Amino acid sequence: MCYFLFIKDYFLGFWDYETPKVMVVKNKKLGVIYRGVQFLVITYFIWYVFISQKAYQDSETRPESSVYTKMKGTALQGDHILDMVEYVRPSEGGDVISTILRREVTHNQRQGTCAEHFTVPSANCSKDADCTSREVNFDGNGQRTGRCVPYYNQTFKTCEIQTWCPIEDYAAIWEPALTEAINFTVYIKNAIHFPKFKVLRGNIKPNKRNGQKYLNKCHYNEKEHPYCPIFRLGYIAEQAREKFSELCRTGGVIGVFINWKCDLDLDPSECTPTYSFRRLDLRKNLPSSGYNFRFAKYYSKDGEEFRTLIKAFGIRLDVIVHGHAGRFSIIPTIINTVTAMTSVGICSIICDWIMLTFIDKNDIYSDRKFDDLLTVPTEFTISYGSNHSDLSEGVAL
Amino acid sequence: MCYFLFIKDYFLGFWDYETPKVMVVKNKKLGVIYRGVQFLVITYFIWYVFISQKAYQDSETRPESSVYTKMKGTALQGDHILDMVEYVRPSEGGDVISTILRREVTHNQRQGTCAEHFTVPSANCSKDADCTSREVNFDGNGQRTGRCVPYYNQTFKTCEIQTWCPIEDYAAIWEPALTEAINFTVYIKNAIHFPKFKVLRGNIKPNKRNGQKYLNKCHYNEKEHPYCPIFRLGYIAEQAREKFSELCRTGGVIGVFINWKCDLDLDPSECTPTYSFRRLDLRKNLPSSGYNFRFAKYYSKDGEEFRTLIKAFGIRLDVIVHGHAGRFSIIPTIINTVTAMTSVGICSIICDWIMLTFIDKNDIYSDRKFDDLLTVPTEFTISYGSNHSDLSEGVAL
Amino acid sequence: MCYFLFIKDYFLGFWDYETPKVMVVKNKKLGVIYRGVQFLVITYFIWYVFISQKAYQDSETRPESSVYTKMKGTALQGDHILDMVEYVRPSEGGDVISTILRREVTHNQRQGTCAEHFTVPSANCSKDADCTSREVNFDGNGQRTGRCVPYYNQTFKTCEIQTWCPIEDYAAIWEPALTEAINFTVYIKNAIHFPKFKVLRGNIKPNKRNGQKYLNKCHYNEKEHPYCPIFRLGYIAEQAREKFSELCRTGGVIGVFINWKCDLDLDPSECTPTYSFRRLDLRKNLPSSGYNFRFAKYYSKDGEEFRTLIKAFGIRLDVIVHGHAGRFSIIPTIINTVTAMTSVGICSIICDWIMLTFIDKNDIYSDRKFDDLLTVPTEFTISYGSNHSDLSEGVAL
Repeated sequence: MCYFLFIKDYFLGFWDYETPKVMVVKNKKLGVIYRGVQFLVITYFIWYVFISQKAYQDSETRPESSVYTKMKGTALQGDHILDMVEYVRPSEGGDVISTILRREVTHNQRQGTCAEHFTVPSANCSKDADCTSREVNFDGNGQRTGRCVPYYNQTFKTCEIQTWCPIEDYAAIWEPALTEAINFTVYIKNAIHFPKFKVLRGNIKPNKRNGQKYLNKCHYNEKEHPYCPIFRLGYIAEQAREKFSELCRTGGVIGVFINWKCDLDLDPSECTPTYSFRRLDLRKNLPSSGYNFRFAKYYSKDGEEFRTLIKAFGIRLDVIVHGHAGRFSIIPTIINTVTAMTSVGICSIICDWIMLTFIDKNDIYSDRKFDDLLTVPTEFTISYGSNHSDLSEGVAL
Repeated sequence: MCYFLFIKDYFLGFWDYETPKVMVVKNKKLGVIYRGVQFLVITYFIWYVFISQKAYQDSETRPESSVYTKMKGTALQGDHILDMVEYVRPSEGGDVISTILRREVTHNQRQGTCAEHFTVPSANCSKDADCTSREVNFDGNGQRTGRCVPYYNQTFKTCEIQTWCPIEDYAAIWEPALTEAINFTVYIKNAIHFPKFKVLRGNIKPNKRNGQKYLNKCHYNEKEHPYCPIFRLGYIAEQAREKFSELCRTGGVIGVFINWKCDLDLDPSECTPTYSFRRLDLRKNLPSSGYNFRFAKYYSKDGEEFRTLIKAFGIRLDVIVHGHAGRFSIIPTIINTVTAMTSVGICSIICDWIMLTFIDKNDIYSDRKFDDLLTVPTEFTISYGSNHSDLSEGVAL
Repeated sequence: MCYFLFIKDYFLGFWDYETPKVMVVKNKKLGVIYRGVQFLVITYFIWYVFISQKAYQDSETRPESSVYTKMKGTALQGDHILDMVEYVRPSEGGDVISTILRREVTHNQRQGTCAEHFTVPSANCSKDADCTSREVNFDGNGQRTGRCVPYYNQTFKTCEIQTWCPIEDYAAIWEPALTEAINFTVYIKNAIHFPKFKVLRGNIKPNKRNGQKYLNKCHYNEKEHPYCPIFRLGYIAEQAREKFSELCRTGGVIGVFINWKCDLDLDPSECTPTYSFRRLDLRKNLPSSGYNFRFAKYYSKDGEEFRTLIKAFGIRLDVIVHGHAGRFSIIPTIINTVTAMTSVGICSIICDWIMLTFIDKNDIYSDRKFDDLLTVPTEFTISYGSNHSDLSEGVAL
């Protein structure tokens, strides 16, 4: 034991080496148990800690990551052709990108007064007194003027409100879904950097043979094109186990996971990403499932502003990058080796317990293992110097 | 000790069991110290490591998280009704969402030339020579034309600049704050996924009884509606200890923290989030406190583009998700148990030190504990085989 | 050893103290090796673990961070003056901000039919039969009408498509780069919060003397203005080792890293950030290097919508915040001290191995260290009680 270093070097030499005295028990049963436990512990360390967990490596998670996304494809919406400028939001191409699959469009909304929608609580009325002026119903579309007006071209009446008219609930035109969007592609460029190891990797393989041409044509496919960073929306939906037609109806958020698992002891070219896809918003008929958002295009005519309100259902792709890199390093190797060796000590505890409880029926082992020493009374120790060896024998037995 | 395995099995049997020889000291004082230290160490491990830190669990932090936000509410700005399409940016509903609370609007800006604002350094002039043509002042609003012109309808003159005219500093109309925004609501849908445990949770409780209806009416409140994901802006400001009227004036960034602490050994339905709110941008009368941004709506009339410039003050909500999940696992349990047992060894170090320094006045203990062995000279060892037991006695004493 | 606690306190007193018996080997060579290894281990722990890695501190990484960015500057594009409302996207000022450096503008696009670009595969035609109606070529700009029309004012013909006309490839006007953008500035406000330590820090130093005035004038510079949060784009590009003119041409993504390394045992005012800049998108003549995106401004005239399509090349700044804080804590200090002491035990293993293999030529040490004990046959143990001391002697030798 090393710890006596600080106390004992004044009465024993500093350069002495101390080692514990050991009792060897020649008992087959105990030996087998002992070696068995040792084997388990050593196996655990070699197989699990060193081989599986790579404890000999210094590791880094959470690399610095940069994601750039760009969508491509055109679709026909009636007579109107939609290109990516119209269906992709935001346009800047960051790690979150939404594509519109279906729209409910309300054209030519203007600030003014019109009838509240009939489903809004207490919106139905027969006379002006039914509508409180300046009241704002939380579920309604605007502030009430206090008048009761015919509901658009219907015979019944609702309270008049001040808002963007006509109201969306009444005037929105449900466009059919962009089913062609299944063939839209999203190009995902990802570069990661492990600052500790100074390793920079990208998900586009430099390919001198075909280069840009390849990137213009390929579509990612785990087996055929694992290095192509261009993903069909249909492929993404399929991998996320979603029906594209269902996504068109309700919208949804899909996570695109880019996983980098880099063993830098191997060739860096082995450090390539894998992709996985999973729907992120909960479903299972939960209320408010899906993904939609509203935005408007504003126009002006003769100084008066009007807008086209669009409620968009679509897919939001969240690109999430996970990274892990490891490289051999001396310090974790030493630490884990020492831990392994120290942990082997647990074998002794188990075997000592077995030995002293189950095997040592006649106290032979414990007698030899334990050297009892009574507290020596003070008068007794006076004569101690002269008869040292006898005394210690006497105390021990 | 297990480590001799590799050296000794050629001269001692492989199946022998080795256990350290121990000296038992029957000293009450020492025994009490020893057991006391042991008690502290064991208590630390059981109470802190195992119960408080749950060291028997395999844990995962940083779940994959998906956030979807949507604001609701209408407000009256003079005669103009504002709905969420106008005051929420960006419209896509990600984890960062801004709501406009106050606007400074500059209408009908056009590309052209007009007078520079009088507060800009060296903008005041009395003749054309005071203004350098093509000079761009960094604090100014555009490039100087070299002319000195009357400042709008004032009597003094400033340098003329080429820019969007009229300049914002002169022409902006300060709209009153949207105090009704205190009742706006933000719906925050959050789904998390712990990939290691394959656990998927959302912050919306499936509620068959009322479902969608409940979500249309409820407002989050820690005590009454802990499972409602709809938050009043006023509630958020209050929880972040901010005055809403102050936020309307300067704007601010508020963090909405969703904390998931999941003990997966319990029923998964116990894994529910808690919310907390804190202002993220620094204040305390620091320069440039608050949150504002500028954007413009572009229009065209007779082929000429004009715009409405809006300087918006508002609340930016940053939804930040923290997660931690733990589940019983055999490997961390074993590792921590072994560590605990090994750490108990620290008791021996302390007690040995106490024993040898303070109690062992007559070297009785140290004599018995330490078995001194001198280096045997070479000539001496020749005769060693024949008289083994005597020699070893002689060396020891 | 402490572990016998549970078994032995019924036959030995609970308050007894057990300490391993130790053999002291007075061998200089071994002592020097032993102390040498000890010295290495202790040095490693004191220097690397405690001083360099600060193992006595409780630490927290990943602070809650809030970033607010704002750009400033004006540039002249021909006769058109551009201000930040036009060249910065998105306008909300989050942690990702793009500035446009060069634009390819297609004016007055309208929904209609026009000739496909001649580089699109199979777009060239001589008669209508060459063009399949309703076909959408993936690399093309829209759906074919089935007619073969003259390519704008050229003599050759291409298939007619239904799309936004005129097509970008033909009609885009390449504007010169905004070289003045090198002097644009970006103001980056960052506030972090370490929840465990309840420490809140910002990157703007409260400066009573000059305050807001200083922030209006200063430009960040590592040496002269380390506390100024305003960065020139030119400085950022320079620090990221990029040529600004090259960035204007292709665009690029630059990471702005804010590193907080806080030793909270020192004065909190020492906890200041450092900045570093690195290009994040891969280059090295890889295909699709750079950063660009498309967006459009929509207008309306006489009920007909038209748009200006802009392909923007620019710099995207990704502000990435790293944080680490540490503060003295008793628990990690104790744990690491115990680990250090336990690890010193590794010295014994090494020295025992050296001693028994290389030095102990005559088995003196191993004879004294190891106390062999044969398994005692059952009939032998019957007589054991009466002649205890002799027997144990006999078994041992």
